[in-house]
Amino acid sequence: MNNPYQERLRKCSNLMKAAGLDALLLAKPANMFYFAGDGRLCAFLMIASDGKVGLGVPRTDVEDVKTLAHFDNITGFEDEVGMIHSIAHYFEHFGIKKGTVGLEYTFLTQSMMGMLTHPHAKPEGVTVKDCTHIMSELRMVKDDDEIKRIRVAAKVADEGMKAAIEAVKPGITESQVAAEAEYAMRNAGASEFWRTYVSSGPRTNIAHGLPTLRRLQKGDLVMIDIHPIVNGYSADICRTVCVGKPTKEQQAAYDLYLKAQQATISNAKAGVGMGDLEETLHGVLKEEEHEGHIFGPPIHGVGIEFEESPLPPGHAFFHGEKEPPPLVSNVVISVGNCGLYTGPWGVRVEDTIAIGAAGPEILTKYSRSLISG
Amino acid sequence: MNNPYQERLRKCSNLMKAAGLDALLLAKPANMFYFAGDGRLCAFLMIASDGKVGLGVPRTDVEDVKTLAHFDNITGFEDEVGMIHSIAHYFEHFGIKKGTVGLEYTFLTQSMMGMLTHPHAKPEGVTVKDCTHIMSELRMVKDDDEIKRIRVAAKVADEGMKAAIEAVKPGITESQVAAEAEYAMRNAGASEFWRTYVSSGPRTNIAHGLPTLRRLQKGDLVMIDIHPIVNGYSADICRTVCVGKPTKEQQAAYDLYLKAQQATISNAKAGVGMGDLEETLHGVLKEEEHEGHIFGPPIHGVGIEFEESPLPPGHAFFHGEKEPPPLVSNVVISVGNCGLYTGPWGVRVEDTIAIGAAGPEILTKYSRSLISG
Repeated sequence: MNNPYQERLRKCSNLMKAAGLDALLLAKPANMFYFAGDGRLCAFLMIASDGKVGLGVPRTDVEDVKTLAHFDNITGFEDEVGMIHSIAHYFEHFGIKKGTVGLEYTFLTQSMMGMLTHPHAKPEGVTVKDCTHIMSELRMVKDDDEIKRIRVAAKVADEGMKAAIEAVKPGITESQVAAEAEYAMRNAGASEFWRTYVSSGPRTNIAHGLPTLRRLQKGDLVMIDIHPIVNGYSADICRTVCVGKPTKEQQAAYDLYLKAQQATISNAKAGVGMGDLEETLHGVLKEEEHEGHIFGPPIHGVGIEFEESPLPPGHAFFHGEKEPPPLVSNVVISVGNCGLYTGPWGVRVEDTIAIGAAGPEILTKYSRSLISG
Repeated sequence: MNNPYQERLRKCSNLMKAAGLDALLLAKPANMFYFAGDGRLCAFLMIASDGKVGLGVPRTDVEDVKTLAHFDNITGFEDEVGMIHSIAHYFEHFGIKKGTVGLEYTFLTQSMMGMLTHPHAKPEGVTVKDCTHIMSELRMVKDDDEIKRIRVAAKVADEGMKAAIEAVKPGITESQVAAEAEYAMRNAGASEFWRTYVSSGPRTNIAHGLPTLRRLQKGDLVMIDIHPIVNGYSADICRTVCVGKPTKEQQAAYDLYLKAQQATISNAKAGVGMGDLEETLHGVLKEEEHEGHIFGPPIHGVGIEFEESPLPPGHAFFHGEKEPPPLVSNVVISVGNCGLYTGPWGVRVEDTIAIGAAGPEILTKYSRSLISG
C-alpha cells in the first residue's frame, strides 16, 4: 500500500490546482491530523500546491510532533507573534509571493482569521479564499485504514452505550449516566471523546440535550448520544431507553422511529443521495402523521470528527459548501440523528454505517430496544 | 438583592451606548448564559441598547428554555433559514433599521458570521462591529453569587483531582487517569466539564497535553489539568505528581515552580496588573536560570468558562482585546498555567483564586505535592 499521507497530498494538490489555490493554511486539528498524522491546538499546517508541507507548533511540542507527524518542515514558535513569523517563513520558503491561499472559513473565528492573515504573516500579494469544500471532498471518502479505525471506534461506542444503559435507574442524574459512558469508553481504549449528550424526561424533546443534574424518574425516557475517539477516529451512536415500562405511546413512537431508521439504512448504498435518504426517513414518520414532530437533518458523515462531511444539503448550503454528491463506497455516515419530538418527550436511534460495495455495513451494533433492563 | 440579570443588562446597556452599539447579537453559549441564565448550541440572543432581550432557539427547545431563561421575547425556529428570519424579526421588533450591531468576533467562524449578517437577517443599514471587549469587561468582575458558584466548582475540581491522583500507578493509561477525574467530578455534582488534560513522561513537556493511550511508567511525571462545570460555573486546577520517587532534578524544578506560583498568588490583590503577576512568576523561575524553560502566559480569568477575561496582555492583543485593567475585588483568576518545560519533562501547578478585599482567596485546595502516594 502507498503511504496514505502521500496519497492524500497528491489528491489535495489536484483539487488545489482545480480551485486555483497556491497553498492551504490549516489550523483545524482534524484537518492537520488528516494530512500529517498529528493535529493539535495552537498549531498550523501549510501545504503548497506542489505537495510540500510545513508544520508550525508551540516550541515545547517539537520533539513530540516529530514522533507522530509526517511532514517536510517543522518550526516551533514561542507565542502569537512567533506563530505569525512562522507563517511568513513558510510563504517565503515555498516561494509564494502572490496567488491565493485557502483558509478554513467554517473553523476560523474572526480573530484567528486576523492572525493568519496578519500583514506580518501573509504576503500582501496573496489573497484568501475558503477551502472547506476541498477538505470535505478529501475526507468524505475513507481509505481502508480509516474504515478499520472507525470500526474499532464503533466497538468502543458500543461499550460506552452498554455501561450507560446498565446504569439507568431512578435517582441517578443525567450527568452520572454520561459519566458511566465516558468512563467505559476511556477504559475500552478511547483517548478522547466528543461531547456526551444525555437527556431525560421532558428534556428528551430538546435538540441538543447536554447532561444536567436532573434525576431520572420511573417512566422517563432517557436519550444517550456518545462519540468516542480511538486512534484519531470517531463513531456516533444514540439510543433511547425507558426507566421502567414505557407507555403504549412511547413504545409506538419508538418502534416507528426505529422502522424509519432501519429503512433508511437499508437504502444507504452507492449512487443514493443524502437528500433521498432524508426523504426515506422522514417519509416513514410522516405516514404516521408525525410531520410536525421532526426536527433537524437525520444524516451526516463520521470520521476524524463525529460530525463531518457529507453534511446534509441544508447545513452544507448555510456553511458555504456545495450539496454533497451521491454516496460512494467507503463513505461513512450516521443515520438517525434527527429524532422524533412529540412535545412531552422524544425518541432517537442513531447508528454509524459504512457504505460498501455489498450494501451498508452497520458499525455500531448495541441492542436497539426501548426496554433498558 | 437586585435581580442580577437586570443589573447585568443595565451595565451592558451603558457599555453599549459608550461604544456606539445599538444591539448585541450573541451566539456564544457562555455569553447567552450570562445574560439569560441559559446558553445553548444553535441559538442566539439579541440585546437592544434599551435593555430589551430576545432569544431564538430550536423550536423543540422552547418549553425547556422557558423554565430556565430570563428574557422578554422568545422564538423557536425550524432550521438555518428559520434562524435567519428570527434575527430579522428581532431587528424589526426592536425598531433597529440602521446603526451598529455588536458580534462576537472571537467566537464566530466566517460561516456563522455569514449567517448572522445574511441579507435576510440584518437590515442593510446596520453595520457590524466586534463586541468581545464589552463581554470581557462585564464578565471579568464577578458578583457574589458567581463567586459562590465558582467556590462550589473548585470543590468539585478538588474531588476530581483526588480521584485522578489516587489512580496514578504504573501501567494505567493517561486516558484512564482522565476517566477517574471526570467520573469523580460528575458524581460530585458537575453537569459537564471542559477538556481534560493528562500528560505523562516526555509528554509533560508539551503545551497542551491531551490524554493518550500512553501507559504510565515508574519515574514518570504526570500532569493533570481539569475544569468541572457546576451550576454553569467553572474552576481550573492543575497538579503534577510523580509515579514513584521523583529525581532530585524533578523535585527541585517542582519546588521552584510551586514557590513561583505561591509568590504570585500572594501578590494577587486589587490594584496589581496581570503583567506584574506574570513578571513575579517568571522572575522566580528566571533567577534559577530557567529563562529558556518558560512557555505561555501563566494567568487567565475563570468563570462561566475555565479560561476567560481577564486574558494575559499578549493574548488579549492578538484576540482583538485591550490589555486588562489592574485587578479589582471579585475578579477570579487561575495562577500557574504556564509551566516549566525542561525538555525531557515539565512541571505545572495551577490554582483558581478570587481577588478579595482582604487578599487572595484560594479556591482550589487539593494538596500540592509531587509525591502521589
